[in-house]
Amino acid sequence: MLAVTKHLFDDATQVTAGDSRWQGRTSDDYWAFVGPFGGATAATMLRALIEHPQRAGDPLSLTVNFCAPVAQGAFDLDVRLVKANRSTQHWAVEMTQGGADVATLATAVFAERRPSWSHQPAQFPQTTAFEQTLSYAKVAAPWVKQYDFRFVEGEPKFGSSPQAAPATAFSKLWIGDRVPRKIDALSLMSMSDAFFGRVFHARNELVPFGTVSLTTYFHTDAQSLAAENITRVLAIADAKIFHRSYGDQHGELWSPEGRLLATTTQIAYFKA
Amino acid sequence: MLAVTKHLFDDATQVTAGDSRWQGRTSDDYWAFVGPFGGATAATMLRALIEHPQRAGDPLSLTVNFCAPVAQGAFDLDVRLVKANRSTQHWAVEMTQGGADVATLATAVFAERRPSWSHQPAQFPQTTAFEQTLSYAKVAAPWVKQYDFRFVEGEPKFGSSPQAAPATAFSKLWIGDRVPRKIDALSLMSMSDAFFGRVFHARNELVPFGTVSLTTYFHTDAQSLAAENITRVLAIADAKIFHRSYGDQHGELWSPEGRLLATTTQIAYFKA
Repeated sequence: MLAVTKHLFDDATQVTAGDSRWQGRTSDDYWAFVGPFGGATAATMLRALIEHPQRAGDPLSLTVNFCAPVAQGAFDLDVRLVKANRSTQHWAVEMTQGGADVATLATAVFAERRPSWSHQPAQFPQTTAFEQTLSYAKVAAPWVKQYDFRFVEGEPKFGSSPQAAPATAFSKLWIGDRVPRKIDALSLMSMSDAFFGRVFHARNELVPFGTVSLTTYFHTDAQSLAAENITRVLAIADAKIFHRSYGDQHGELWSPEGRLLATTTQIAYFKA
Repeated sequence: MLAVTKHLFDDATQVTAGDSRWQGRTSDDYWAFVGPFGGATAATMLRALIEHPQRAGDPLSLTVNFCAPVAQGAFDLDVRLVKANRSTQHWAVEMTQGGADVATLATAVFAERRPSWSHQPAQFPQTTAFEQTLSYAKVAAPWVKQYDFRFVEGEPKFGSSPQAAPATAFSKLWIGDRVPRKIDALSLMSMSDAFFGRVFHARNELVPFGTVSLTTYFHTDAQSLAAENITRVLAIADAKIFHRSYGDQHGELWSPEGRLLATTTQIAYFKA
């Protein structure tokens, strides 16, 4: 962290140390409609792992299952190192509030990544430069205000009259923190959930929506990210199917130089 | 199940009932190089959930983290209903052997899926008919023998001399059980891990490889699958990046009629 004052995102995802039990609080700054922004919750759980004294290596994958609404206020994180091998660690994290049922359940893999053959078949998406792309100004929830979204393609047109044919679910956009913050694994985790619901795009309207399970794979490590020294990513997201109240999303987060930093997928509930 | 005699796959993924603790055995029929085929392990864990007396709804998502090699023989499944809401259930399953550390860790979401707006932006891949596509004959491991793979595109050419430029990681193929078996959630789960390692395709050679984390989303339910009454799927898989010893895979499993049944993604270790 190079910032002199603490970034809102770091406040929002703060946790205090424990051994197997950690504490945190939801952030009003990253509040969504009926609970904290899922990306902030995911990043908070990842932070507890990254800051854990037993942690070795870099995050490779994180899956977060959103089991129940998270209420405003304090929460506990039950952090467990499930299995450690020579070069990988498997973790489980459960978020609870006031001793009640599990609200959020995460599993993570950390790895010491060794040099290998390298090949990136995915193509860096063609884009307009960040500076030549307009910021998205319509802020529907507090967490949206924390990001600078600049749509290259697929800017949502919520509130325009619903169409007979579904609109595209594809979006391409620059995502940075509104107050610039150097991209690290925590912000990649959070940004991987910062796409608007694909169903909003496909239907041109806001409908009841909630991410049920989110998985992000990291294709970089702390050292490489520090060397990248970037404050935004080029992101794409799309959907393959909406069916019987659930829809998918898959996305990519790219460095401005064309390095694929993370891939992400989620399944989400919708009512429409 | 319409089969009169029990299918090998059902033997391989058999579990005996418990409440929170279930038992099973690895299957020699679905053995891979150094352990059971991960798809069979994933399907076995899913079976314990589907057969659990408290289970409600259809599988929506399953994430399996392969923490350590699974040894030949008996294993225990510790099955836990983490949270149940009106229409969803969140489960966790841990596989152990002989009281040792966790070998495989899974989280799952089940859902009662309600009618909704339906839209399938993903395109059914163009393909030759199953009957007009040749079976893949080169069997490298026992589990491969249990499937009838028919490559439409991207049949692997292991053993041909490594090329200067990487080959495509994309494959399109029909997948069915060698002894035909009606497709259900269990076989979709298993088949979602039945693609050969993308690194094998990209490098035209077998290298040390292991799936680390696998996530599959189901876009259908038991009733719809029963009505489909199919014994094979059209499947595609591709990779976006191979970097510092890990590579990704994403795939789709389609009904022959063009319904997207499941999407899947995984991150895998490789040595090359």
